[in-house]
Amino acid sequence: MQGVLDIPAELSKLESLLFESLPQVEKVFADQLISDLPPVDEMCQHVERYRGKMLRPSLVLLCGAAANLETDSLLAVDNTKSVITQSHIVCGAVSEMVHMATLVHDDVLDEAEIRRRGQTINMLKGNETSVILGDYLIASAYELCSSLNSPVPSRIVGNASAVMCSGELLQLHHRNNLSLDEATYIEILERKTAALIGAACELGSLSTLGFDQSDHPTTIALKSFGVHLGVAFQIQDDVLDILGTTETVGKSVGKDLDKGKLTYPLIHHLSVADVEQGARSLILIQRAANGETTVLPEIVESIQTTKSIEATKSFAASYVVRAKEALTTLPPSSGRSMLELIADAVIQRSY
Amino acid sequence: MQGVLDIPAELSKLESLLFESLPQVEKVFADQLISDLPPVDEMCQHVERYRGKMLRPSLVLLCGAAANLETDSLLAVDNTKSVITQSHIVCGAVSEMVHMATLVHDDVLDEAEIRRRGQTINMLKGNETSVILGDYLIASAYELCSSLNSPVPSRIVGNASAVMCSGELLQLHHRNNLSLDEATYIEILERKTAALIGAACELGSLSTLGFDQSDHPTTIALKSFGVHLGVAFQIQDDVLDILGTTETVGKSVGKDLDKGKLTYPLIHHLSVADVEQGARSLILIQRAANGETTVLPEIVESIQTTKSIEATKSFAASYVVRAKEALTTLPPSSGRSMLELIADAVIQRSY
Repeated sequence: MQGVLDIPAELSKLESLLFESLPQVEKVFADQLISDLPPVDEMCQHVERYRGKMLRPSLVLLCGAAANLETDSLLAVDNTKSVITQSHIVCGAVSEMVHMATLVHDDVLDEAEIRRRGQTINMLKGNETSVILGDYLIASAYELCSSLNSPVPSRIVGNASAVMCSGELLQLHHRNNLSLDEATYIEILERKTAALIGAACELGSLSTLGFDQSDHPTTIALKSFGVHLGVAFQIQDDVLDILGTTETVGKSVGKDLDKGKLTYPLIHHLSVADVEQGARSLILIQRAANGETTVLPEIVESIQTTKSIEATKSFAASYVVRAKEALTTLPPSSGRSMLELIADAVIQRSY
Repeated sequence: MQGVLDIPAELSKLESLLFESLPQVEKVFADQLISDLPPVDEMCQHVERYRGKMLRPSLVLLCGAAANLETDSLLAVDNTKSVITQSHIVCGAVSEMVHMATLVHDDVLDEAEIRRRGQTINMLKGNETSVILGDYLIASAYELCSSLNSPVPSRIVGNASAVMCSGELLQLHHRNNLSLDEATYIEILERKTAALIGAACELGSLSTLGFDQSDHPTTIALKSFGVHLGVAFQIQDDVLDILGTTETVGKSVGKDLDKGKLTYPLIHHLSVADVEQGARSLILIQRAANGETTVLPEIVESIQTTKSIEATKSFAASYVVRAKEALTTLPPSSGRSMLELIADAVIQRSY
């Protein structure tokens, strides 16, 4: 989240700790993927292009810091290192690896989309490698997670992954469902995005408090923070997918519309538009879902007549409020302050 | 393996135990996949068509029995139930679920193959659902595995899965490599097939002896049995892929050739054929890899000139011998006897 956060001076020690720890996460990540087979190593390098913002590892580390209830040791000079243990580092790497596996498999689906219009060469080989590379990542994540001395983190990661897949399946089920309602939309988001982010926060807390502390109020609070943050994060992603369309029409394409995925801006628009406008918009959305990208600017125009982007941003902000509310049960600390900053940043980002 | 095994009377008690336990494995398997989302439940029913021969769960259960070193309790009337614990049942379900996930993803790759010739409709949706369903299966397998009270089985399953993927990636790397050698072929088989079968046998042993007994000679012997059995199993699969072609020319297609995968019958043939014959065969193989299925009978004819099917069967048999040799360190028991029967059956099967 660097570059987004305006970090005040009193959090600089924690910021330094984060910047020292993230390279350790990256090292554990890379080491786990090393294969004794050179061609496999070579293929793993493809994965590099999926490297993300390291949001999930950052949350593991910061929730680990925020769960340190005895003292805000991050502000004490002598005690900064001891807050982050190997368990935090491993859980950070695991959460990023699971996330990256989903990106690799999303890429298979996206490539399939592109192929549908005949734009690619040798897509078959690309697809196969992506499917197996994604599987390799997820297997490696589980192997790494089970190196910890408890089955609890494996249970959390396995469960979050299964919930995530169920969210993706629910979304596939509702493809081209132009009457998708808000409740189902949120159900999809909570599963496909928020479950893993919630798990990352839970793992951070447990790495500090001990793996038998799943029912500890701090763990419950931090997990709740992560789940609400995750929903806000995905709503913002959905806004960016729509807005990215207007700014770069003809180049970048609104992927969600293209895939027949109805997101909040459209759900809001269709629910408040008058009958005539609603009917016009439905026709446009259907055309976009059939691959007619030229109608995208018209859709954005329609959405703006009902102020649906603003409504979506407010909706995302309400989840940030709930995320921060979850933190109020924790004592003030630099970890908690940094989590609050991240929560605000998630809906302010433009990338 | 029912229908293949000719089970002698003295093993009938163990056979009964197996037939009682496998439905329990199926129940744990089905229960784990239950989703609170009806559309997800519905999609999971697609998975039914991938149900296999339950080889891996059978091996977990039988290795569990063979690892019971104190007494061959299976032959004692009062003690038959206690041999198979919930841990064996769970490990059996996990091993089948991981296997089924690979079948689902193989199906994506196969469907891609069919699409290449334009034979399918709405393949895009099929592909996406298959990718995510496979992911859901693998995540559910890990979640189920981590319900056991030790991280060791998760470690074994995570590692076996990663090794399995590395074998698939190695195979993809050597697609259309017509000079693939025997050592690399075996490396691929050991990884993509034998690792999981070895893990199933190891999990059976550990479920009996305790999860801290990975270094126990019995666990090592049973794992070695599984790895060698797995190689034999896959070699036999490769033979069937070739022979299935002759018997049903024009209908069933030799998938391996079609995908540019060189298997042992061809590797043997190319290594012993004279220069002229070898050159002819290479041209035929290349044409098959380009999708020209009509050349398949000619390839089979060529292979028969060098007795390569017989050589392949001997090669598979040598792995069965090694699998059974691994068992000789175990005391005689009905479990061990049944494993020996399965080892023989694996290379006698025609399906």
